[in-house]
Amino acid sequence: MQTLIWKNLNQAERQTALTRPAQTLGDEISQIVADIKNQVQNQGDTALFALAEKFDKVKLDSLKIAPSELDNAQNTLSDELKSAINTAYTNIHKFHTAQIPTPIDTQTMAGVRCQVTTRPIEKVGLYIPAGSAPLFSTVLMLAIPAKIAGCKKIVLCSPAPICAEILYTAKRCGVDEIFAVGGAGAICAMAYGTESVPKVDKIFGPGNAFVTEAKRQVLLTGTAIDMPAGPSEVLVIADEFANPAFVASDLLSQAEHGADSQVILLTDSGDLADKVLSEIDNQLQTFPRAETAKQALAKSRIIITDNLQECVAISNTYAPEHLIINTENPRQYLDDIAHAGSVFLGAYTPESMGDYASGTNHTLPTYGYARTQSSLGLADFYKRMTVQELSIDGFKNLANTVAIMASAEQLDAHKLAVEVRLKELGE
Amino acid sequence: MQTLIWKNLNQAERQTALTRPAQTLGDEISQIVADIKNQVQNQGDTALFALAEKFDKVKLDSLKIAPSELDNAQNTLSDELKSAINTAYTNIHKFHTAQIPTPIDTQTMAGVRCQVTTRPIEKVGLYIPAGSAPLFSTVLMLAIPAKIAGCKKIVLCSPAPICAEILYTAKRCGVDEIFAVGGAGAICAMAYGTESVPKVDKIFGPGNAFVTEAKRQVLLTGTAIDMPAGPSEVLVIADEFANPAFVASDLLSQAEHGADSQVILLTDSGDLADKVLSEIDNQLQTFPRAETAKQALAKSRIIITDNLQECVAISNTYAPEHLIINTENPRQYLDDIAHAGSVFLGAYTPESMGDYASGTNHTLPTYGYARTQSSLGLADFYKRMTVQELSIDGFKNLANTVAIMASAEQLDAHKLAVEVRLKELGE
Repeated sequence: MQTLIWKNLNQAERQTALTRPAQTLGDEISQIVADIKNQVQNQGDTALFALAEKFDKVKLDSLKIAPSELDNAQNTLSDELKSAINTAYTNIHKFHTAQIPTPIDTQTMAGVRCQVTTRPIEKVGLYIPAGSAPLFSTVLMLAIPAKIAGCKKIVLCSPAPICAEILYTAKRCGVDEIFAVGGAGAICAMAYGTESVPKVDKIFGPGNAFVTEAKRQVLLTGTAIDMPAGPSEVLVIADEFANPAFVASDLLSQAEHGADSQVILLTDSGDLADKVLSEIDNQLQTFPRAETAKQALAKSRIIITDNLQECVAISNTYAPEHLIINTENPRQYLDDIAHAGSVFLGAYTPESMGDYASGTNHTLPTYGYARTQSSLGLADFYKRMTVQELSIDGFKNLANTVAIMASAEQLDAHKLAVEVRLKELGE
Repeated sequence: MQTLIWKNLNQAERQTALTRPAQTLGDEISQIVADIKNQVQNQGDTALFALAEKFDKVKLDSLKIAPSELDNAQNTLSDELKSAINTAYTNIHKFHTAQIPTPIDTQTMAGVRCQVTTRPIEKVGLYIPAGSAPLFSTVLMLAIPAKIAGCKKIVLCSPAPICAEILYTAKRCGVDEIFAVGGAGAICAMAYGTESVPKVDKIFGPGNAFVTEAKRQVLLTGTAIDMPAGPSEVLVIADEFANPAFVASDLLSQAEHGADSQVILLTDSGDLADKVLSEIDNQLQTFPRAETAKQALAKSRIIITDNLQECVAISNTYAPEHLIINTENPRQYLDDIAHAGSVFLGAYTPESMGDYASGTNHTLPTYGYARTQSSLGLADFYKRMTVQELSIDGFKNLANTVAIMASAEQLDAHKLAVEVRLKELGE
């Protein structure tokens, strides 16, 4: 990790210090995905079987997971793991249930009733990547809010063969249909539908560059997606009171996700910075994913500031996905945090807690999108619809206002709609 | 308008009846917008001056509207119009203030505190098209929630010369900076910034095909936008008790927006259908925008059903932007409405009321996007951020759960972050 003293940097160096590695998907990936999209749209299931054979090296008999496979998964998992999943389920369920919106129902003026009401997104598709580890925790994060929101159909796709952890968790969360379909093919299958895979309205979930590009392409043809994606990242603000081993392990937790992960430490203590560096070396000694973590750390930075307020300001410029504030009395800085996906306060709130089981969602805006995008929540599984109802008196109260404004906008039929009613009322 | 009897249609005919006119932006528009984007990114204000001369036929001295111009606008408007704008302002402000979210703060388990908090989107850009009429009502719909949300910088662009109605309304709503910049150039200026126009985080507002394409292109480079856009549309459900003149004027209100607007009437009464058709002819006699309306009506349909429940089902398939339910006891159908932008209940709630002054937002999902997108509201001007804080006891309560799950996902540093803390606690 590169150590920088903030006050010694000029404007351009500061900007460079907070610049994320460039995200170039490349025309090649774009073209491969466009080809997969055409195949799935034209050949349906046939294309999906062929893609599984090509990319996942599996010859499948059926894309859909049978109930017996789900039962088997249940028997494969240890009781310890099932119990852990259950605890996480309970916390995540509780926190997302707390997000059920109160309907808004108000009279803006006498006789003019206005409401905001919500409706579930009818059919949702959840994508769970396979890759180096089975991300069953993401199943919890996507399926629980979908179920609470009341989505009528919850479909899940993951590359074949799907591990028992994912199958068990999907069943536990009430996913309706599970398909052994992976990558860009899965995204296209859920966007357009095939003989087996239902067409959905909105697609959620992480994935590699091909999955990201497929989500971008189906978005252009009208399928909604959860949020734009980029590599995972953490920013830690720590002071002299922080335990260097805690900070080091939090930075490594992010670095182990992939070589493209980014970790940043902001501190007002040069002493802490030194100790964290030496703790990272220490922890890396026995660390299985040391190579991945080292690649991520090579692009990462420690920035030393004059004070903690400066750390907060820098964090706001960066707009991190995960923000850990490991200082004395961390909550005092919360009001000043303008942009972050999820905030972790205090020495005993490592990112792992939110990644798995505190109850918050681990699907968060990366790559600076925290400036405009929300942490995934229940709201992403429903949409808001407004309703208005005017009594005759309410109509009379507003008629003149609307007629004058419509006239000024030269929208005569809008004015006429008011006038024919006034006439009927004998006004 | 074409009249169809639903029960006489086969599946394919039903689908055709509910298909919107194809939206083809075309490569040509795409290329023109890409060129404009390059010009604005490379030449900044110089490009904007040139674009104003080319497209708006105006030679500008300055892009930014001076305070004196705002004062002049104030003096130009009639008291009647200012009063109408004021009434609309009050209702819209009230309804959007009612949308301020209650912060969520809950313990998912002992010692595990989880919160959802919100932060305003810092800088927002509002685009107001000029075209055939000055759409100052859209200024109300975009600037009022931006101000309530606490956006720090509210920028507005509209093609030169900006009419007094827009300037007055913008000042009334507290817009910070107003620029006489139009079309795709305005969208690019707000996305990337120029010497005069500040770079914003999110862009809102309607526009023609060039504006829509520019929003699509800046979205791909990281600027957020309000929602995908399409032509405006209304679906009316009416029964034998509806006043045909009311229904006709509501259909015309939509048809006058443009030749690409779509209007649909669903009714269980053939008699009403006939009367509405003759009322439309009648109202068109003296109607200034008759040609535009006729073009829109040519692509529009009356569908006759067996009963009103069938009307609701058809409406859900179509997912209209505006849905007017003009029947006896219209509220009884509300729970069954699964997808709509905004619902207008009863004989005295024409769409004009919501377009201008009931309090609801007139920025709504078109083109079937109501299946997944919300009516624009306060929530579009802030983002949700989660927060978690674990006490030592809370940490101990969850430590095992997280360690087991991290281990099962082969994320060793995630587990390590738990273990170093347990060790420190002597556990």
